[in-house]
Amino acid sequence: MLFFTQCFGAVLDLIHLRFQHYKAKRVFSAAGQLVCVVNPTHSLKYVSNRCTAAQVSTEQGGLPPCHHHEAVHDPQLVPCTCPLFSCQWEGHLEVVVSHLRQTHHINILQGAEIVFLATDMHLPAPTDWIIMHSCLGHQFLLVLRKQEKYEGHPQFFATMMLIGTPTQADNFTYRLELNRNQRRLKWEATPRSVLECVDSVISDGDCLVLNTSLAQLFSDNGSLAIGIAITTSKVHNAEAEI
Amino acid sequence: MLFFTQCFGAVLDLIHLRFQHYKAKRVFSAAGQLVCVVNPTHSLKYVSNRCTAAQVSTEQGGLPPCHHHEAVHDPQLVPCTCPLFSCQWEGHLEVVVSHLRQTHHINILQGAEIVFLATDMHLPAPTDWIIMHSCLGHQFLLVLRKQEKYEGHPQFFATMMLIGTPTQADNFTYRLELNRNQRRLKWEATPRSVLECVDSVISDGDCLVLNTSLAQLFSDNGSLAIGIAITTSKVHNAEAEI
Repeated sequence: MLFFTQCFGAVLDLIHLRFQHYKAKRVFSAAGQLVCVVNPTHSLKYVSNRCTAAQVSTEQGGLPPCHHHEAVHDPQLVPCTCPLFSCQWEGHLEVVVSHLRQTHHINILQGAEIVFLATDMHLPAPTDWIIMHSCLGHQFLLVLRKQEKYEGHPQFFATMMLIGTPTQADNFTYRLELNRNQRRLKWEATPRSVLECVDSVISDGDCLVLNTSLAQLFSDNGSLAIGIAITTSKVHNAEAEI
Repeated sequence: MLFFTQCFGAVLDLIHLRFQHYKAKRVFSAAGQLVCVVNPTHSLKYVSNRCTAAQVSTEQGGLPPCHHHEAVHDPQLVPCTCPLFSCQWEGHLEVVVSHLRQTHHINILQGAEIVFLATDMHLPAPTDWIIMHSCLGHQFLLVLRKQEKYEGHPQFFATMMLIGTPTQADNFTYRLELNRNQRRLKWEATPRSVLECVDSVISDGDCLVLNTSLAQLFSDNGSLAIGIAITTSKVHNAEAEI
């Protein structure tokens, strides 16, 4: 198993090298892996209180818990899930992807395994790096956030959300992998649904968490490469039944 | 690769179950894995400043950088590396293991893969959980520390040190793995030498770091199981040469 991980490390090194040659490109291929260069999004207005703590009760249902503006009377409507933007949009789950693409210009990548290359990691918090990832017949939203949970000590938080219901999200496992300077960090979990709130996932710390010094160790010239893989999680369900 | 990881998750579940039956035992076997129950060590005197920042310059040498009491004139002498204890002992590298066993009663376990089961995770910081691990002809020291880097926000830090020189340490890779509640976190790195200082490794955050909420998600009844594997790192060296 370690051997495969080490191979992936070499792949990430190649990606960093290749990125030096393709600075202008947003998406390129290196060592057989699709790489997406993701620029940061910095917002002056940080909307930290737009989510309620109600999402736990909606785990089995499809109700949107995040009512950051007036109460949403139609339970089929979802507020804009795009973090950091104080966007007033709301719509049905089926049109969230087109809203994020058209209004917020978020890239969407195809493939079970991709590499997310976040640039300008030195920018001050709060900053987000966001892409959508299409695979296994669904769309996922990857959010990397730089945030100061403790004043003066920015940390990086990375999580993956399914653009679907919590019940659909339970069928998947996502893996985030960092690999550089003879260090490897892997996080695997079930994705949350965008009907839950990315702000609360991050404030709970139930995601991949990096302090600044670790983020620097894994970065190359201010860019952080995160390997992403998504699989269906049948084994999880079998374990749960036992 | 995910399948193997999921199997390891089932193993950790079995270990937690088995631990309920073997509360009195310090070392037992579950699912073919050797499990060591590690009790916390709480010290009123926290010796945070006993290490200097000199260890970087000794990376290639064998000089001890941690002079927490009077200057050590013999470069072959190592101060006691046992974290948290304000122990005045110093001695040659060859007798560190017997000092840690006899004076600090630290268990030593044999085997390439073991499980470290830290109890009483709720105890206030600063607290350490320590064992020695003997494999591949060397002895390693595993340290799990609960510490408040930011006041009122305790975090857990886990790292592995080789009881040997930095040059010897470069030949190994250690892996720490947490697996519970459909979440997995893996950290792989080259162990540091005990001639460097565990305090500085932890204060730099160059180790496995867990916030309290993640530690709770990975714990069962206040105990945290960490899977440990050590391998030789020939591939690392080959990569470095490229």
